[in-house]
Amino acid sequence: MARVGRVRASSGDPPIDGFADLIVGFGANVQPGQIVAISSEPGKEPLTRAVADSAYRHGAKFVDVQYFDLHVKCSRILHASEDTLDFVPSWYGERILALGEQRCARIGLSGSANPGLLDGLDPARAGRDQLPFVRETGIVVNAATTNWTISPAPTLGWARQVHPDLDEEEALARLWEQVIHVCRLDEDDPRAAWSSRISDLVSAADRLTSQRFDELHFEGPGTDLHVGLLPTARWICANFETVDAIRHIPNLPTEEVFSAPDPERVNGVVAATKPLDLQGTIVEGLRVRFENGRTVSIEADANADALQARTQLDEGAARLGEVALVDRHGRIGPLETVFYDTNAASHIALGNAYAFCVDEPDKPRLNTSAIHIDFMIGGDDVAVTGVTADGERVPVLRGGDWQLG
Amino acid sequence: MARVGRVRASSGDPPIDGFADLIVGFGANVQPGQIVAISSEPGKEPLTRAVADSAYRHGAKFVDVQYFDLHVKCSRILHASEDTLDFVPSWYGERILALGEQRCARIGLSGSANPGLLDGLDPARAGRDQLPFVRETGIVVNAATTNWTISPAPTLGWARQVHPDLDEEEALARLWEQVIHVCRLDEDDPRAAWSSRISDLVSAADRLTSQRFDELHFEGPGTDLHVGLLPTARWICANFETVDAIRHIPNLPTEEVFSAPDPERVNGVVAATKPLDLQGTIVEGLRVRFENGRTVSIEADANADALQARTQLDEGAARLGEVALVDRHGRIGPLETVFYDTNAASHIALGNAYAFCVDEPDKPRLNTSAIHIDFMIGGDDVAVTGVTADGERVPVLRGGDWQLG
Repeated sequence: MARVGRVRASSGDPPIDGFADLIVGFGANVQPGQIVAISSEPGKEPLTRAVADSAYRHGAKFVDVQYFDLHVKCSRILHASEDTLDFVPSWYGERILALGEQRCARIGLSGSANPGLLDGLDPARAGRDQLPFVRETGIVVNAATTNWTISPAPTLGWARQVHPDLDEEEALARLWEQVIHVCRLDEDDPRAAWSSRISDLVSAADRLTSQRFDELHFEGPGTDLHVGLLPTARWICANFETVDAIRHIPNLPTEEVFSAPDPERVNGVVAATKPLDLQGTIVEGLRVRFENGRTVSIEADANADALQARTQLDEGAARLGEVALVDRHGRIGPLETVFYDTNAASHIALGNAYAFCVDEPDKPRLNTSAIHIDFMIGGDDVAVTGVTADGERVPVLRGGDWQLG
Repeated sequence: MARVGRVRASSGDPPIDGFADLIVGFGANVQPGQIVAISSEPGKEPLTRAVADSAYRHGAKFVDVQYFDLHVKCSRILHASEDTLDFVPSWYGERILALGEQRCARIGLSGSANPGLLDGLDPARAGRDQLPFVRETGIVVNAATTNWTISPAPTLGWARQVHPDLDEEEALARLWEQVIHVCRLDEDDPRAAWSSRISDLVSAADRLTSQRFDELHFEGPGTDLHVGLLPTARWICANFETVDAIRHIPNLPTEEVFSAPDPERVNGVVAATKPLDLQGTIVEGLRVRFENGRTVSIEADANADALQARTQLDEGAARLGEVALVDRHGRIGPLETVFYDTNAASHIALGNAYAFCVDEPDKPRLNTSAIHIDFMIGGDDVAVTGVTADGERVPVLRGGDWQLG
């Protein structure tokens, strides 16, 4: 935490151009001649423009910025006819597929610009509109045809949500400091720092893969969850390569290793360890029970129905598509700040799986869905144990530390 | 001018929801079940969101907002490789064509959010990038498959440009007052007021059409311009109908009647009577000479090269696609404010023609181009005379008043 005080943000403007260069040159690794698609929101203009500028300086052929306006989605949920709420114009999906076919780069700027804007709306109606998430994105991600990354863009709205006790300017400055810290921009050489951290994650992922666990067992307050793994499941970290061998880091920051669970073998109960921001609706105190892979009960202190509605969108929406482990040596968890955004802890995701997590024979068994919703289930007080096909129990995470040799 | 003081904007917030309802319900005439595309810019969020909300309240199936960010275009002109500057991603045109095929509504929010942002950039480079104008828009407009309108959205940047002598808040309030006035929102029944004005414009257009002039002759300070007309040329006002018989008003406000000139028969010199805002570059004191339909000289006090570069984009870019007449009974001209936006005076446009201005035999003679750039050439001191095939000269506009019986 001491180094947070050293960053430029605390003595003036955030180092936005340096951040943009890291996102473009290291995260997405934009190549000369590529089209670069940027997904942003009104309120994120400063970083969006800096990223676009950096992309052009890196030789981009064109930068296609899309600002998704949650206020307009809000009007839709309030007024549109019930049977149209899951409609998506044809050109939304076609554009995403074209980004793949034309080997483009994709950059997403996360962090809600309008947290809680959808609060109080009918959650069943809100849940039917998945935008800005577009189903075809899963196809393009699995085809590995685009080099991409997602990074946080601080906004006033997000800063107010994360630091409700500070005044607006302080909250935003504080959030920028934290984003700079978790993105390792306060290091002399942020790329070298990331390369070192990613090397540790690769090593953790390889150790996990070599164990060939049959399932993971999560145990903690309110959590007793068994997550079955497929026979060829690989553990992967954010160290991706496209079909054209363009290396990229799909999340910056990234602290996780992840795999694809068996969508038929998830059983037990799990309590979320962080609030979940569901495209503008905050789900607090989430508790989910699974039987034979499916959610059979979704409860929460607030807005459970928003998540319930989403799990009814298709068959795969009530099953898991991802399980991810995060140790306590990352930079997000130790800040002890609820960011409503970054994958700060071990998590699972309802919905679509990443096809590259398994070999060919297991691909048909992977979960498929129009949704992919991560929620945090890990923490220092959640033990993770690997269980082999023989029933042997092998400690994986204890107190947030890796236990595999 | 007296009524400007009465509008709600002067006593508080502008009547933004009423304006949005006029744009959606009267201008574009959005029908239940339609997809509505809105072209906007960062800085225009309040009116954009009000228009989107109104569209959903009018039964829209989906509202697709695109915020075009001129700052990103600026980075492109500064940094992108020369040979990529006219590149447009395939999905831009495909989306426009889909809007036509799927019989959508289109709403544009005009008025620059960043006037002068491109000043100082290489005009030849700037001129090669036509965005946010997309070539396929001309196809869809001529096919009359979309009901559409364009209305002004006041922003701080635009207000500073129009009222440089006022402080920011006053300038914006004043611009809103003026927009409300020219859009007749200060009438008890704005729709009735528009219906009445449009009825006058229809009548003027019909009188012009029935004259079957061979050419128009513009004479005024710095102007002596002959604009040939095609044999079947019709004069039209902003009283459009789609192929599905949806009436719409493509500009709100609108004060003009227009037709398509003969692209081979434009001769003489013309001086622009207002500055031209060329997607962020202001061209001041523009003087153009035409010979046999083509521009042979383009001069200006500032930024002539920005327009020169655009006339080199394709064969039709140096020829006329539109001639429009505006009397002095509209509400824009009498304000004597330079808006850099609305068609406040008689004007001509370089580039693509509107196909519905002529009958089938003349359609192949119409000008075609990727550009359509209007500039103002009219005023109370510019006389417009119709010349018949027999050489008879018939006064059309004198001192801004119609002369046709």
